[in-house]
Amino acid sequence: MIERRERARVWFETLRDQIHAGFEALEDAAPADLFAGDAGRFVRTPWDRPEGGGGVMGMMKGRLFEKVGVHCSTVHGVFPADYAKKVPGAEEDPRFYATGISLICHPVSPRVPAVHMNTRLISTTKTWFGGGGDLTPVLDADRRDDHPDTIDFHAAMKGACDAFDPAWHAKYKQWCDEYFFLPHRNEPRGTGGIFYDHHDSGDWEKDFAFTQTVGEAFLKVYSEIVARRMQEPWTAEEREEQLVRRGRYVEFNLLYDRGTMFGLKTGGNVDAILSSMPPVVKWP
Amino acid sequence: MIERRERARVWFETLRDQIHAGFEALEDAAPADLFAGDAGRFVRTPWDRPEGGGGVMGMMKGRLFEKVGVHCSTVHGVFPADYAKKVPGAEEDPRFYATGISLICHPVSPRVPAVHMNTRLISTTKTWFGGGGDLTPVLDADRRDDHPDTIDFHAAMKGACDAFDPAWHAKYKQWCDEYFFLPHRNEPRGTGGIFYDHHDSGDWEKDFAFTQTVGEAFLKVYSEIVARRMQEPWTAEEREEQLVRRGRYVEFNLLYDRGTMFGLKTGGNVDAILSSMPPVVKWP
Repeated sequence: MIERRERARVWFETLRDQIHAGFEALEDAAPADLFAGDAGRFVRTPWDRPEGGGGVMGMMKGRLFEKVGVHCSTVHGVFPADYAKKVPGAEEDPRFYATGISLICHPVSPRVPAVHMNTRLISTTKTWFGGGGDLTPVLDADRRDDHPDTIDFHAAMKGACDAFDPAWHAKYKQWCDEYFFLPHRNEPRGTGGIFYDHHDSGDWEKDFAFTQTVGEAFLKVYSEIVARRMQEPWTAEEREEQLVRRGRYVEFNLLYDRGTMFGLKTGGNVDAILSSMPPVVKWP
Repeated sequence: MIERRERARVWFETLRDQIHAGFEALEDAAPADLFAGDAGRFVRTPWDRPEGGGGVMGMMKGRLFEKVGVHCSTVHGVFPADYAKKVPGAEEDPRFYATGISLICHPVSPRVPAVHMNTRLISTTKTWFGGGGDLTPVLDADRRDDHPDTIDFHAAMKGACDAFDPAWHAKYKQWCDEYFFLPHRNEPRGTGGIFYDHHDSGDWEKDFAFTQTVGEAFLKVYSEIVARRMQEPWTAEEREEQLVRRGRYVEFNLLYDRGTMFGLKTGGNVDAILSSMPPVVKWP
């Protein structure tokens, strides 16, 4: 088990390095007439968790990526008794181990969709993977299932799932649609993707390969989407629409996102958790 | 009882009219060299609650007051069974009536503190008042107990309380400090004020007079604070500090504020509830 945990940790950190490099290359490649200033670079900030483990925040504030966080963390400890009851395998023994990568990206251009990705391994007396990726186009004109960005994103996630089990994509796409939804607005956060948790097919090697494939497919398809959309100029009205749309992102993360609320209310790394907040937001 | 409810409703609407007029006069009086553009005016938008009652949103987007909402609502209905258990007097009979005024103010200038005020009458088989007012200076330099704005605000709230009972101010000031606190940041939202709920001294006339006095004291002291602070120029750095500080306001309202969460999760008027969100916010 230790060896598996270590392999997962090393993989998440490898993916993190690949994403940092890929996003920095896009910073370099962004057209200078649309994106003023110097290409951004990720800044890494390590942090320790007093109860055990820690992580490295990776933040970039660039000319293309207004604010993007790509973090890894590996933590271990003992769940509080009331929380342990809700976690598979923790009621018998409340000790846990968790390692993973998380990414939230807010581009400068409203023509470039925002995106979120997270994959993790959790281990108690049971072990499973969780995560997913979902796309958030910010302009009404782009927020439709038949838009090329959304078609390509779903196709990439479907490809990653189908390589392992033909039933997974439909299930995890639906879970994503249900999870990333704002009931008070009666609207989805974005145009979806996949979301999965407690993923344990009984074949750990297969599940690990699946998680790796999701991460690689995410990096490839999102990079392609950014590369083409960053060629498009945008209007001041579209920027305004983006800033207002970002408010819905804030509402979702603070009102509904289980990870955010759990982290904030249980003494997680506030800077890392709230690095998901958009850099500028409007509620006009 | 009906007559008392009606008197309370009429009072809250009278206070609303006074605040609208007072804030519009400040819009007129703001120095033109600091506050460009035309003086703002409140726009009233009535809304109906399908289950019974409704309200009037009053929003102003001005040159001094970047975004201020001063709303009245009067609603009635039947609490859901699980909620009724938590509300005094509702377990016996889940019908309720509520009337009140709410105010959230985000000024343009970082030198002018933000503020919140809310008073209400709630009636089930029991009847009580709730509410309070609290000041949120947005600059670190102003966020201290010995700042004149905070001294004056607390003195006004203390005066309103002391006119009725010498024990109330200490109790309601402490409640305010406890309520308007962000545990994940380990910091208060602002510099406090008073907060009270289930206020029923046994003398309804006295409690109604207390609520009226709180509202009048609030309008007077906040108007005085705005009138003097709006004379001060501010720097771009202070504006930036304000926009970041507003993020904490958003975090509080969406993560912790019981009224916001209850309203959003039970089908309240989303526009009215989220009119408390600051107009522009940064999480750098």
